Amino acid sequence: MADFDLMKELHVAAQTKIVMLVIDGLGGLPMEPGGPTELEAARTPNLDALAVESICGLSMPISPGVTPGSGPAHLALFGYDPTRYQIGRGVLEACGIGFPLGHSDVAARGNFCTVDEDGLIADRRAGRIPTERGVELCQLLRAIQLPGVETFVEPVRDYRFVLVLRGEGLSGGLSETDPQQLGVPPRQVEALIPEAQPTAELLNQWIAQAREILADQHPANMVLLRGPDKTPLLPSMAEVYGLKAAAIASYPMYRGVAKLVGMDVLETGETVEEEVETLKTHWAEYDFFFLHVKKTDSAGEDGDFARKVSAIEHVDQAVVPAITSLEPDVFIVTGDHSTPALLKSHSWHPVPTLLRSRYCRPDQVRTFGERACMGGGLGVFPATDLMPLAMANALRLTKFGA
Amino acid sequence: MADFDLMKELHVAAQTKIVMLVIDGLGGLPMEPGGPTELEAARTPNLDALAVESICGLSMPISPGVTPGSGPAHLALFGYDPTRYQIGRGVLEACGIGFPLGHSDVAARGNFCTVDEDGLIADRRAGRIPTERGVELCQLLRAIQLPGVETFVEPVRDYRFVLVLRGEGLSGGLSETDPQQLGVPPRQVEALIPEAQPTAELLNQWIAQAREILADQHPANMVLLRGPDKTPLLPSMAEVYGLKAAAIASYPMYRGVAKLVGMDVLETGETVEEEVETLKTHWAEYDFFFLHVKKTDSAGEDGDFARKVSAIEHVDQAVVPAITSLEPDVFIVTGDHSTPALLKSHSWHPVPTLLRSRYCRPDQVRTFGERACMGGGLGVFPATDLMPLAMANALRLTKFGA
Repeated sequence: MADFDLMKELHVAAQTKIVMLVIDGLGGLPMEPGGPTELEAARTPNLDALAVESICGLSMPISPGVTPGSGPAHLALFGYDPTRYQIGRGVLEACGIGFPLGHSDVAARGNFCTVDEDGLIADRRAGRIPTERGVELCQLLRAIQLPGVETFVEPVRDYRFVLVLRGEGLSGGLSETDPQQLGVPPRQVEALIPEAQPTAELLNQWIAQAREILADQHPANMVLLRGPDKTPLLPSMAEVYGLKAAAIASYPMYRGVAKLVGMDVLETGETVEEEVETLKTHWAEYDFFFLHVKKTDSAGEDGDFARKVSAIEHVDQAVVPAITSLEPDVFIVTGDHSTPALLKSHSWHPVPTLLRSRYCRPDQVRTFGERACMGGGLGVFPATDLMPLAMANALRLTKFGA
Repeated sequence: MADFDLMKELHVAAQTKIVMLVIDGLGGLPMEPGGPTELEAARTPNLDALAVESICGLSMPISPGVTPGSGPAHLALFGYDPTRYQIGRGVLEACGIGFPLGHSDVAARGNFCTVDEDGLIADRRAGRIPTERGVELCQLLRAIQLPGVETFVEPVRDYRFVLVLRGEGLSGGLSETDPQQLGVPPRQVEALIPEAQPTAELLNQWIAQAREILADQHPANMVLLRGPDKTPLLPSMAEVYGLKAAAIASYPMYRGVAKLVGMDVLETGETVEEEVETLKTHWAEYDFFFLHVKKTDSAGEDGDFARKVSAIEHVDQAVVPAITSLEPDVFIVTGDHSTPALLKSHSWHPVPTLLRSRYCRPDQVRTFGERACMGGGLGVFPATDLMPLAMANALRLTKFGA
């Protein structure tokens, strides 16, 4: 990871600006042997021109062979060792919807699901009920009372919600109830450490009451809880790098993780065009901008190679030139992880990355793609190295030692 | 860093010789987008021929994005983790002028400076007074008496001197007085750990007396103390690698750091030709030679691209063939860090490096330059890996495990 002691010691003030454009799930694979990846197939004249002036490489989110979730993958991009700083799914979702989570609260991500008459899971997402229905169901669940703690049930999107317990003596260190398969019953919450026993019992009581309340709400007749935990204490990017940092992301989870590292989360819209407008509006106010693009990942998850190619081409046209025209001192284009359409999921493959600044040492990469970046000056490198490199290229680090 | 336990366990005796040629500040950047770096622009037929027979790469002094000072950068080349072994500026300067520093002494680097009538710093280097003037002023400062400790004031060069306190119970863990800006007063020395309080007070007394003595010596009417500390205890290269090692360097600081790792510092002259003569004279006596070239770095610091190119070409002609003709078993050419003329300072960029031996596995690099070395067999590698590689190629390491 970025050596935070070194970063804290060496960072100096500057007027320079850094933009990190994260194209979610950017990396891919050929659909056929010998074929191009999504990025290689895409027509990306703006990214290619940028690559010529950049130092390029492939960034490794966690370690070789390890596929990251979105939370750890983003933490790594921001320089935080994702194996050291672990964020529960519930905390991420809560931050993403702007829920004011306290440091002693426990948050779980909830999914409405369908169980059959034997209580076995028939659909882990309750037929992907619409958001409006989720909102109504959350309203019903707010009737649940637990001894000694306050509860909050907040809709997120579709079949997803956040459950928060607030009170004295709550603990993380809890298992989740989603067995991630069909035809079996939901699990019980278990305490993974002894002091979490009372919290596990409270969550199980809450689930039992939810089951009763939802009994006649088929297909959303049960809930699954994922990643119940407290908020980890992360040093802020201001503390580590001395940066005033802002996040521009349409999708809740990415706003959540940005908030955890102390970024200001800017109001923006659903489209990349609106994200770019937000960037322009706030350009003068921040040193560092994280701009997140979601659609590439969604297309990869759906196994839709052509849609992922289009999404990349859209970023190349609608986002890249707009950012370049703002003349950031350091412009990074990367992804949080790969999402090859071939695999229909996140993967372990390292992610094409470029860093352009007046002071980068350009390599011989002439196009932005997986195979081209393999020969780049950054080689295959840990994603956590990106922020120290960004800081150096922004002339925001002083010399180490005499 | 080089794993010292492994090195100590595995090193074996051999008759082989290793030469490490350190071209200070070797790495560079293009002055114009698309242009060559200093090394790429230089005509270097001898280095290019060597690169063909070598394994090449880019060495990273500290970690990605971190710009090193000369001390830590050299420690890394010798295999010492520079974030673990930190050397104060005063200690480095004292060693460099051959001052016999004891392990309980505290040494500070001193700068003569100019303060105005309000005591605010007007010039941190006292108009860069000549060395002869510095010598006279040091003579004046030797009159200062401190209770219970002996003091030494030794001129270095220009406006710089070394202050050494010798006595019982002195401690490192002290702040420096140079605020590194103008228009503010010098700081007081502060104890960073409780046991350093008496030493801090002694240094502050010394500074107060120096101010009085220098009052009418404008522009050198005050002093700044930098990096006051004791000598760190470093294992010697003899202990770690079993090498009898010698340093050939004109410039004090490099002799200083070599001495700290237990090298014999050989008497030499000011020119690279004299350094080469020193190498030839002592060739039979040592297993390992560190030969240091300074002018490349000075040219980079001055922002003089053409002069740096010339300095590199001079090394190619006057140093490289002479070393090759001695037939070292391992010949390493590297730099301690990059000093791009574009930045006029040390930088974080990794450093072109080649290692030639009968047993290296040559790569496809055909010229010695930044972009060529990017594609070399060593890739981008930690500078602390060089010594284990040198030892292996000198057939001085036995097998690990059965």
